[in-house]
Amino acid sequence: MTVAKEFEKANEKYSSNFTKGDLALPPSRHVAVLTCMDARLDPARALGLEEGDSHVIRNAGGRATDGLRSLIISQKLLGTNEIVVIHHTDCGMLTFKDDELKQQIKDEFKDKEHKNLTADHIAFLPFSDLKQSVLDDVEFLKDSKYVNTDKISGYIYDVKTGKINPVI
Amino acid sequence: MTVAKEFEKANEKYSSNFTKGDLALPPSRHVAVLTCMDARLDPARALGLEEGDSHVIRNAGGRATDGLRSLIISQKLLGTNEIVVIHHTDCGMLTFKDDELKQQIKDEFKDKEHKNLTADHIAFLPFSDLKQSVLDDVEFLKDSKYVNTDKISGYIYDVKTGKINPVI
Repeated sequence: MTVAKEFEKANEKYSSNFTKGDLALPPSRHVAVLTCMDARLDPARALGLEEGDSHVIRNAGGRATDGLRSLIISQKLLGTNEIVVIHHTDCGMLTFKDDELKQQIKDEFKDKEHKNLTADHIAFLPFSDLKQSVLDDVEFLKDSKYVNTDKISGYIYDVKTGKINPVI
Repeated sequence: MTVAKEFEKANEKYSSNFTKGDLALPPSRHVAVLTCMDARLDPARALGLEEGDSHVIRNAGGRATDGLRSLIISQKLLGTNEIVVIHHTDCGMLTFKDDELKQQIKDEFKDKEHKNLTADHIAFLPFSDLKQSVLDDVEFLKDSKYVNTDKISGYIYDVKTGKINPVI
């Protein structure tokens, strides 16, 4: 059985008790959270979010360059005015180098005809210093005039304790 | 008060009862969910996800091009082998055209020196047909040899009912 089929079953239960069908499209708390895709991190439970409260943008590492398109849409079209960046301890992005992953892909897919140089077209955005990665991503957004950063903050979520610790 | 400060307060409660500090980095259910940042959508509650279960990648629209970097990392480095794409009814991506948002940004930031043509560097990825957007994104991933799509499915989440409805 696929996990998708398990999701369908779990969703039957969720939807059978669903009482939140009248929520507005714009986030009621006017905030966008930018965080990692990591499985151990549940932003809703960890931050006390209810359906309708907040945009939640998630990608490998919670990187700001990757989230910029979504943040612009969140602010320009859906009225959010605060950004909360959350990276986390033991992140997969601390475990590899961009060139290594590119090479792994090239090796995996190489054939007689080409060298899969399209792998070079993707910046995988790993980092070696967790705290610095939060500072860098907040700074990247502050440098981006297309998003409002009057209210922006950065945290590290500790996967051992469930706690968010402020960085900036 | 910022929403971030409210998150800190809510997180104190979450972390004070935290019992999941020993979870492994790779998702235990070997699945990555790709969905929208929409505030009304809580993937964990809607799909029965516990901490540690699944990567959750979220961006404006749940678009696959935007999620590709994260999906490659999810599969190549963290062992997931199934992808579940979930778009949703009443999505903000149905409400605008790419050129309109680019123009809005250019108008907002125009000054004497330049026309803010960097807005043209961002593809905002709206869509006009919801079902087609799911089909397109699944197809985009199937066309991307850098991700394994042996197990991939696409759904539309209905924000009125909380139900996921299969598309492909």
